[in-house]
Amino acid sequence: MALVKVYVNYKKSILNPEAQAIQKALGRLGYDNIDDLKLGKYFEITVKDGVSRADLDKEINEICDKMLANYNMENYHYEIVETEAAQ
Amino acid sequence: MALVKVYVNYKKSILNPEAQAIQKALGRLGYDNIDDLKLGKYFEITVKDGVSRADLDKEINEICDKMLANYNMENYHYEIVETEAAQ
Repeated sequence: MALVKVYVNYKKSILNPEAQAIQKALGRLGYDNIDDLKLGKYFEITVKDGVSRADLDKEINEICDKMLANYNMENYHYEIVETEAAQ
Repeated sequence: MALVKVYVNYKKSILNPEAQAIQKALGRLGYDNIDDLKLGKYFEITVKDGVSRADLDKEINEICDKMLANYNMENYHYEIVETEAAQ
């Protein structure tokens, strides 16, 4: 089994009103140590056994490009964690 | 500067239709190696200098409980990455 953690974030040039609203609300609650807050998506994908690392890289990149991230507005990165058995 | 990465995921007992829809769509596209797909939120919080580790832990837990996660439906965990300077 492999667990793939995918992080999708807005590109720097893209405004994210939800993140801005949260940051402002934290300021109003007195948390004035917060310099910046970014909000993105986080996927945990469990992949079946028997997929080579090269195939897995190819597949994850395809999935991210096609479905998980909008390449006009978002960047993604991922990490692959090998696991012994299904959780 | 400290960078805090916060991961918010639905609890196991909570249905997540968005994650299910993505997983089914991947199956239809031929990605049948995917055993499970979870979708959560990912925050990157930059905290100003001069906050002790204990205060930072306290503050991040408060912020997560009050604002970033819904404790009825979601779990969170976080990691603190020390950084030299602002990005």
